[in-house]
Amino acid sequence: MTIESPTRHTVKTYHRARFRGDVATAAAQIGEGFTFRSPFITSDSPTGHLDGLDRLLGIVTSVELISELYGETEATLIYDIRTAPAVGITQRTAEHFRLHDGRITAITLIFDSAPWQAIMAAAGPTAPSP
Amino acid sequence: MTIESPTRHTVKTYHRARFRGDVATAAAQIGEGFTFRSPFITSDSPTGHLDGLDRLLGIVTSVELISELYGETEATLIYDIRTAPAVGITQRTAEHFRLHDGRITAITLIFDSAPWQAIMAAAGPTAPSP
Repeated sequence: MTIESPTRHTVKTYHRARFRGDVATAAAQIGEGFTFRSPFITSDSPTGHLDGLDRLLGIVTSVELISELYGETEATLIYDIRTAPAVGITQRTAEHFRLHDGRITAITLIFDSAPWQAIMAAAGPTAPSP
Repeated sequence: MTIESPTRHTVKTYHRARFRGDVATAAAQIGEGFTFRSPFITSDSPTGHLDGLDRLLGIVTSVELISELYGETEATLIYDIRTAPAVGITQRTAEHFRLHDGRITAITLIFDSAPWQAIMAAAGPTAPSP
């Protein structure tokens, strides 16, 4: 599972870029007809789902990769996103990627939005969303 | 990704048994020191997380497998659980398995609990929980 396949290379490049706030590098891994879906966002533009990334990263203290599994044209990462004590959420996340010609054509992000719903309701419309 | 490895065999056997309500076959895939974690349940008994399975299956109309990826000692399934119109939830789910000696030693279930929280709050303590 540690062989550097094109799928693994693209997904890892995207994942690392996203969590250091490098939108250009993350977007460069996105292919034609891309779709994104999470509990909070549905987007079909290459970077629409990365809007507000800086605000999210402003409260993230670490990202711990728990699992990475790769197929020929898909991958699933499981990771914990830890946030600052003031937020206090550890978001266990599953991220499923579909790829075509070495580029990401679909991402589905799965996590429990319930803790965020409570925080966003309390903080109002300027709260960061994951 | 369709080679029948021991990991794949155990995980598929568990998955199918769970969704037809066959607790005995599901539990037979569980190994020593098992832990289970989901947004609603933390359990370390072989079948504690399967309590109330009948109530859940009573509202499930179909399970659509979206992705299955296998490593040597782990696996991740992504699937949609569709529920009866009265419930109206399609629960996109990620299920991560760790295995040892061909048996499942840990399951982490990731899904958005927010829609269920609302339903359970409205229905009270007898509502089925996923």
